[in-house]
Amino acid sequence: MAAADSAQFSLANLPLGIATTTNKAISQHQNVPGIVTRLHDYVYFLSAMQQNGLFGHDTLTSEIKDAIQQRTLNGLASLGRRAHRQVRNAMQSILRATTEEPSSISPQLAACRVPISDVIMHLPVTIGDFSDFSCSVDHALNAGEAVVGIRKLPPGFLHFPIGYGGRSSSIMVSGGDVLRPWGHFKQGSTVAEVVFAPSRAVDFELEVACVVGKPSEPGRLVPASEAAEHIFGFVLLNDWSARDIQTLEMPPLGPFLGKSFATTISPWIILADALEPFLVPVPTRQIPVADHFTPSGEKGHYAVTLAVDVGAAPPQGNGGSEGTSQDNRNSSLTRACTSQLDSIYWTIADMLAHQTSNGCAIRTGDLLATGTVSGSERGSFGCLLEITKGGKEPFVLGEGKIGGEKAERMYLEDGDTVVMSGWAGDIGSDSCVGFGECRGTLRAARSLDR
Amino acid sequence: MAAADSAQFSLANLPLGIATTTNKAISQHQNVPGIVTRLHDYVYFLSAMQQNGLFGHDTLTSEIKDAIQQRTLNGLASLGRRAHRQVRNAMQSILRATTEEPSSISPQLAACRVPISDVIMHLPVTIGDFSDFSCSVDHALNAGEAVVGIRKLPPGFLHFPIGYGGRSSSIMVSGGDVLRPWGHFKQGSTVAEVVFAPSRAVDFELEVACVVGKPSEPGRLVPASEAAEHIFGFVLLNDWSARDIQTLEMPPLGPFLGKSFATTISPWIILADALEPFLVPVPTRQIPVADHFTPSGEKGHYAVTLAVDVGAAPPQGNGGSEGTSQDNRNSSLTRACTSQLDSIYWTIADMLAHQTSNGCAIRTGDLLATGTVSGSERGSFGCLLEITKGGKEPFVLGEGKIGGEKAERMYLEDGDTVVMSGWAGDIGSDSCVGFGECRGTLRAARSLDR
Repeated sequence: MAAADSAQFSLANLPLGIATTTNKAISQHQNVPGIVTRLHDYVYFLSAMQQNGLFGHDTLTSEIKDAIQQRTLNGLASLGRRAHRQVRNAMQSILRATTEEPSSISPQLAACRVPISDVIMHLPVTIGDFSDFSCSVDHALNAGEAVVGIRKLPPGFLHFPIGYGGRSSSIMVSGGDVLRPWGHFKQGSTVAEVVFAPSRAVDFELEVACVVGKPSEPGRLVPASEAAEHIFGFVLLNDWSARDIQTLEMPPLGPFLGKSFATTISPWIILADALEPFLVPVPTRQIPVADHFTPSGEKGHYAVTLAVDVGAAPPQGNGGSEGTSQDNRNSSLTRACTSQLDSIYWTIADMLAHQTSNGCAIRTGDLLATGTVSGSERGSFGCLLEITKGGKEPFVLGEGKIGGEKAERMYLEDGDTVVMSGWAGDIGSDSCVGFGECRGTLRAARSLDR
Repeated sequence: MAAADSAQFSLANLPLGIATTTNKAISQHQNVPGIVTRLHDYVYFLSAMQQNGLFGHDTLTSEIKDAIQQRTLNGLASLGRRAHRQVRNAMQSILRATTEEPSSISPQLAACRVPISDVIMHLPVTIGDFSDFSCSVDHALNAGEAVVGIRKLPPGFLHFPIGYGGRSSSIMVSGGDVLRPWGHFKQGSTVAEVVFAPSRAVDFELEVACVVGKPSEPGRLVPASEAAEHIFGFVLLNDWSARDIQTLEMPPLGPFLGKSFATTISPWIILADALEPFLVPVPTRQIPVADHFTPSGEKGHYAVTLAVDVGAAPPQGNGGSEGTSQDNRNSSLTRACTSQLDSIYWTIADMLAHQTSNGCAIRTGDLLATGTVSGSERGSFGCLLEITKGGKEPFVLGEGKIGGEKAERMYLEDGDTVVMSGWAGDIGSDSCVGFGECRGTLRAARSLDR
């Protein structure tokens, strides 16, 4: 995984994130988060690069120089696409030498970097509003079939990207533990009794989110054709879901506490420019769409491959001498899903156009997520609800046994780890652009003796 | 209205807000927003009171003194209930003299205040997440009947306060204009054609929201019995709704763009301590509820009277010499609704308990709103959807004619103004605690020639 990760962070990528470091070489960022980029296995602090004069005098505007010193990416994101391009071009110029002649790195540049193992990544932006959409036809059909037994698209689905307001306060960066949520749900499938208890149906959802850069003005519809100016970049997003809680609460106000207990995003924001070479045309629309959406045949989807791997914690007592059920290492990961981001019906630009189509403003740091990205084939379903057909057909981990115990899942068990990944281009090639990991481990529900 | 307003801001109230002033007497807040309170028709700047030594040396902690200097109320709100009480007690001590002997006001205090007409009120807090609940049995039944013809509570309704994630970016303070939103909806009641056009069914919803003070830790359930520590205060909230857009988009993800175009809140945060004398017991629960909710018979509801008045703009050309359809003055206001906040099923503390019951953290400045507060009688319905039974029976403005034109409404027309108000205790008495106005005017949809 580490090798693959390294290859995803090529010179063609250079994403941005927020980090602190345990490495004393960069003392100013031991406690104070700073803006970083990543090239292969090294992380570079932009404020240090600036202090060491690596950007030159005229490369960056004073606005950008100020933004680079901040503790979140919101300032830089708000400056718009041209500013992001300037920063990315400047980083590429500076870092190109290290890829061509690794040993010849200048002392000034060497003083700005630490190995990836020496950083702690933080939330890359302060998030305002988080909207979660449902852009995949296959997911909408599969989920509907699993929950209510009807394989039919919602009434609005082909007219606009349907969505709902997610929760910002519980968004965490990759690596954080997720507590199994308590909630109200119906016990058993035939009895109508509603209980308040730890969820018995915790699931993941494989999604991609865009991070808003330049804000829009209230009242203005930003058409898909102009959305690029407002998109800073992209992250992977695990929309953890408690299916039992969700099922009871959804009619008629939609998902709420079945989702709001946790959302995990990957730490690196892949800049819009880095993914632009992977834009592909939108297939023919099934019905005519409003003018502010991406028309049939226009480039609007990203050719990104997405994957989910699930690992079970070693059973208690069988974890080996150095392992405990509390650490994050897993006996092995099993591929649960591989799907294609360009298989969804609505583009990310369409989501942004829809969000603003009623005049609602978007602000820097807002997230708009695709909803579960599922394909039509077995092996391409982006959540357990679809994989197990609503808890009817088990998902088999590894060889079906871990530490002598049966390893099948309808939904996640405590200690299970979910790792999402995504990449464009061939891994190992110079042009590969990957997201890295979006990882989280489910932990036992807290006790209620407060 | 002004006289009633004045009486609502008694010494027993002393709410907090954020203002700038056009009055040169307080030059430091001409452009820089500051924290203010209001007593009758005067607004007092707390930073000026502090600079003039009115709080004394030992009255307030240094944390509070720092918070008082800020441009939003988030800092002060985050300090918790005890800090809010200290500030309110200190304000009462200082301002009591002005109510007993208005002419004897000290020069130091006089230098801290301006007439209410000399201030511009701003959003009182930076809002994180905004959740909107549906706590009123009558509203849930009436709205269900109007929309889908079925008078039945949603499946979760009696088990927990159902809710959804609202939009923070489009929350504005009282007085702001609201643009009629564009959106997708079905045209006509029998034809299935979906159009993208300006909504034809813009409505108001009468709500009260609590503003979160001290944040909660992720993973912690805050039971209703401990919610008071996390509630800074209360505002009125108009949850503007486009019924046609909402109807098409709701299945299955709930309200989204039919709500997110605009939300208006009143500018004054009524501190939790000011409303505490008006707490009344919760009626017997229809079914047993989880331990974290307010039990039957416990004090949990606020005896607050709420009202909505609607005014039509004078028809074009009939507005009189000094009036135009663009100003905010209305020929007259017609009472559309009077309802009681203690008629809702779930308490505000229950909403907070539910929000945190899955471990989701609440943050300072978050809003949790009640949903439409409706009673069971005609005249107590908190939105036009209920008043007109889904656009079937018109609501008559004034005498039914304004400027010679018919003044009936199924939904709002461009130029209509909606004014919400709310108060506890008898208006005119020394103990009256009121919210002031939550006002907004609907304006024509923008044109789409961008």
